[in-house]
Amino acid sequence: MPTDIILLGHGSGGKLSHQLLDDLIIPTLSGVALKDQNDAAILTAPSHHGRLAFTTDSYVVDPIFFPGGNIGDLAINGTVNDLAMSGARPFAISVGLILEEGLPFAELRRILESMRVAASQAGVSIVTGDTKVVPKGKADKIFINTAGIGILDHSFILTGSGAKPGDKILINGTIGDHGMAILAKREGLDLDSDICSDCAPLNGLVEDILAAGGDAVHVLRDPTRGGVATTLKEIARQSGTDLLLNETELPVKREVNGVCSILGLDPLYVANEGKLLCIVSAEKSGDVLAAMHSHPYGREAAVIGEVTGIGSARLSLRTAIGGLRSIEMLSGEQLPRIC
Amino acid sequence: MPTDIILLGHGSGGKLSHQLLDDLIIPTLSGVALKDQNDAAILTAPSHHGRLAFTTDSYVVDPIFFPGGNIGDLAINGTVNDLAMSGARPFAISVGLILEEGLPFAELRRILESMRVAASQAGVSIVTGDTKVVPKGKADKIFINTAGIGILDHSFILTGSGAKPGDKILINGTIGDHGMAILAKREGLDLDSDICSDCAPLNGLVEDILAAGGDAVHVLRDPTRGGVATTLKEIARQSGTDLLLNETELPVKREVNGVCSILGLDPLYVANEGKLLCIVSAEKSGDVLAAMHSHPYGREAAVIGEVTGIGSARLSLRTAIGGLRSIEMLSGEQLPRIC
Repeated sequence: MPTDIILLGHGSGGKLSHQLLDDLIIPTLSGVALKDQNDAAILTAPSHHGRLAFTTDSYVVDPIFFPGGNIGDLAINGTVNDLAMSGARPFAISVGLILEEGLPFAELRRILESMRVAASQAGVSIVTGDTKVVPKGKADKIFINTAGIGILDHSFILTGSGAKPGDKILINGTIGDHGMAILAKREGLDLDSDICSDCAPLNGLVEDILAAGGDAVHVLRDPTRGGVATTLKEIARQSGTDLLLNETELPVKREVNGVCSILGLDPLYVANEGKLLCIVSAEKSGDVLAAMHSHPYGREAAVIGEVTGIGSARLSLRTAIGGLRSIEMLSGEQLPRIC
Repeated sequence: MPTDIILLGHGSGGKLSHQLLDDLIIPTLSGVALKDQNDAAILTAPSHHGRLAFTTDSYVVDPIFFPGGNIGDLAINGTVNDLAMSGARPFAISVGLILEEGLPFAELRRILESMRVAASQAGVSIVTGDTKVVPKGKADKIFINTAGIGILDHSFILTGSGAKPGDKILINGTIGDHGMAILAKREGLDLDSDICSDCAPLNGLVEDILAAGGDAVHVLRDPTRGGVATTLKEIARQSGTDLLLNETELPVKREVNGVCSILGLDPLYVANEGKLLCIVSAEKSGDVLAAMHSHPYGREAAVIGEVTGIGSARLSLRTAIGGLRSIEMLSGEQLPRIC
């Protein structure tokens, strides 16, 4: 049955499912161990102490194609980054596809190719997967889940509770790019400027950060949904510390700031997909900043704030005119389906 | 904002997301390590040789509640079983939820509670998760992805390519129960008899099978989507052997056979969620069958066929009246959204 769209039968587990796997999914995600088609992939994890990181995320971004990426590389990079933030070396990734009946094969192929490229760039293998199909109108084109296993080579622990008074807060570049790229595309905003998603794998940058900072690096976290504000508020709560941000140090692209102003959005709450927050001791913050600046994904890195003390998990912003504003978590839904 | 349904804001990553996690998801999946809420869970895998199994499945079953289970325990048992079929001891599971705006909290709670119970019964920990919300009409109530890590303690390998001429084909009980339970509920069939899903964790049964059969057990596979026919056809292809089934030996409940007849379905192609096919050397098949009979999930186990020789990946059925019928993979979509 030749067809150029996904049919319900492609999710049956029968002949069409096998054709989809053999003709499209496996060759496109090539170099991977999906070929065996057993119920589970068998891996040998090169870890001396048996310490692993394990994470999962589902991706429901709308639109599925956007400036700077698509749902496929987003799904790989997102899970690579979650592993990297725990200090782990991304090792193996699983891919669960939920396809809406009627999805064009051409779009699926483009998404799968982006996944292969993203996995290759991050140096991680896609080792197992699953594909389901639901009737038209019961999903929205494609949802992707990725889960990932990472290997922990070092002995120190990176967790939100690790922030200590005196630590500096660093970010590797401009904020809000991903969220505003999605919003602009979704709403059909006709912008003069090109705002692109920052979607990128951050594991290489993390390696450089840890090489420069070692166990003086206390927290790594990627500010995705909820943005920098929500992520820092989480860290303040986990560590019981007060944090202070300097508005004038926050790297924000002029175009992103402009669109945010028009729409009444605050870039501090807008999602990022290629950014990390690094909380590091003051002594090592210069070395870590230099390491960031030397990496392609850290050219615009900046020190944006500090941990001011043990306290009541307060996050404050010193504004451009010198005032102090208290920052809360994102309330309600600013931008649905941003990742 | 008190509410008894899921709102878009519950997927924002902000305040409502944290409330959903703190008030419902984490306490309901209690005993799990989700509490840290870092980007990845850190595990110490108790494996001497570093050999792991890794698998994933997404669950889109419709209806989400059905006789014998719901999408929650299905999602746990399905991944537990995929790990068990590779001979691995299920160790850690991730949970990715995609919720449709408007899903009642009461239904989500019921599903999460079933997941906790299923994980506990299987002896596996839910260690990491993710929750997304999509607008009403962009999904169907709830989709769940689970990925799982298993530990391989033994040195032999279970794969579909392991089937050898002379081996016996065993199954641990009646076929088609899950698929017909779903179909009956979905279509509102008013059946006199109760057909229940066989949804169950099979890792304990697999332990007993491997203890009895050791490396004489060549293949374990759970015949889910596509049923026994499609799964055996896959094994025939992977191993390059010919397989023969005896129709008279196939355990099928009278009610399941009855409904299948009325609807023109063949139980051989109907999905199961608590069944496994075991291909084992003839010498050890008696021991393995006895081990199955001693286990609660194997009381109706039977020898249903054999590997007849090296060949062209043919699967044949000796019918009740003594004829030989060639069996192909499921073609098209017999029963959409069965798991």
